[in-house]
Amino acid sequence: MTFLDKLENSWKSSKSLVCVGLDPDRSRIPEHLSKDADVIFSFNKAIIDATADLACAFKPQFAYYAGQNALGSLRKTITYLRQSYPDIPVILDVKRGDIGPTATMYAREAFDIYKADAVTVNPYMGGDTLRPFLEDASQGVFVLCRTSNPGSVDFQDLRVQGDGRRLFEIVAHKAASEWNHNRNVALVAGATFPEDLGCIRSIVGDMPLLVPGVGAQGGEVAAVLRQGLDSRKEGLIINSSRGILYAGRGTDFASRAREATILLRDEINSLR
Amino acid sequence: MTFLDKLENSWKSSKSLVCVGLDPDRSRIPEHLSKDADVIFSFNKAIIDATADLACAFKPQFAYYAGQNALGSLRKTITYLRQSYPDIPVILDVKRGDIGPTATMYAREAFDIYKADAVTVNPYMGGDTLRPFLEDASQGVFVLCRTSNPGSVDFQDLRVQGDGRRLFEIVAHKAASEWNHNRNVALVAGATFPEDLGCIRSIVGDMPLLVPGVGAQGGEVAAVLRQGLDSRKEGLIINSSRGILYAGRGTDFASRAREATILLRDEINSLR
Repeated sequence: MTFLDKLENSWKSSKSLVCVGLDPDRSRIPEHLSKDADVIFSFNKAIIDATADLACAFKPQFAYYAGQNALGSLRKTITYLRQSYPDIPVILDVKRGDIGPTATMYAREAFDIYKADAVTVNPYMGGDTLRPFLEDASQGVFVLCRTSNPGSVDFQDLRVQGDGRRLFEIVAHKAASEWNHNRNVALVAGATFPEDLGCIRSIVGDMPLLVPGVGAQGGEVAAVLRQGLDSRKEGLIINSSRGILYAGRGTDFASRAREATILLRDEINSLR
Repeated sequence: MTFLDKLENSWKSSKSLVCVGLDPDRSRIPEHLSKDADVIFSFNKAIIDATADLACAFKPQFAYYAGQNALGSLRKTITYLRQSYPDIPVILDVKRGDIGPTATMYAREAFDIYKADAVTVNPYMGGDTLRPFLEDASQGVFVLCRTSNPGSVDFQDLRVQGDGRRLFEIVAHKAASEWNHNRNVALVAGATFPEDLGCIRSIVGDMPLLVPGVGAQGGEVAAVLRQGLDSRKEGLIINSSRGILYAGRGTDFASRAREATILLRDEINSLR
């Protein structure tokens, strides 16, 4: 099955555009889990079980595992997702970008070692550095376009000579016109710049957009939907990490995470 | 000691601008090492011991460890380098770039977990995403500027409205004027575009430049030196990976690697 088919099936069966970001920070994991052998996996598993029927995707953020010496927990988490919820796409958020032979190694990391369905990549080094990720239609590739952080204006917002397009618009154009021959390309477009999300949508048609930045980062759901929905009122993967993971800090953290996910899903669906 | 001091001391004591890239590919490691418990570490250790007196730096490429399920070998390699050759800077080539709290996790990965002296980062997401890496002057930060691959023209070469500067020039300007308050910033500028290397040098003064792309990628040493040397005839970290690692394929691979490194060092020094 192609990645796009898997994602579209997941949107339909979950009736949700919510992606649960798995960014576990050991210092914020509820106390009562601290005696578990693999605290991070225990936390993730509880979050996953509490939200899987509400989510169109899960997105583990590589940094939280790499920076806490917990790559084994990442692997266990993805294995668990694939065994227990095989129909939900797993997007490994690792933002890779490197020259050809090196990028091939990173593609192996994402797809062979971690067995993710999709990976995030950084376009700064150019189209040839994305090629090793694009070859297999069953694997999705989310290219950074307009990111949610304030500093994204530094470069992504620069206008080029000639037609005056901004850098992120040129990335979006290339994604749609040059990189998507296997229909497995998607873009990352932050909720914090909703007009730019609309601009990207007008460039890429019904290409899926991964939207970080609602909740803790301040992006507003109504504006995201107004600007970002595709022609079928789908096309968005709206990520929430901290707003779900840390909705509760006590023994009820999983049910609080579930409530937060329902709230977000319902807010989104009421505005679709 | 600051990263810059460590690097400058290393340039002086090694009398070399050569950086040995540790990109071990299991399929290219000499047969006779295949019975070792940690083939990749054995290979790296032999390369390191054969070249340490000829190199101003070592640069392990994260992808080769991540993609071959060998992050333990990466850790052993850096531990070995720090114990046996503590004066030689280790640059972890991982090209990170992510929003604030996530970037903090990546800084932990590079400096606390792997104990690298410096790390490569990708500027696409903007200056705020680099901040967690810049805080400590003992840690170096190599920002991608003009990369060595053909596709680097896709975005890095775009000219912006107004003053017509190219994107990589703007990155260089920001590196020199905004990010370098701890004097720990350096740039990545490929050998394959020597005129652009000269342009970058004119923008950043004596800032160190990491130069990949000589050898296998086709960059020429003479042009690199003409364009890239700083005012003290230093300032360059000229990386070679495949040209050194695979100079020989037999039991003499380490001495062949040593010969290749001497050749490159001497070629460079004859033109300085």
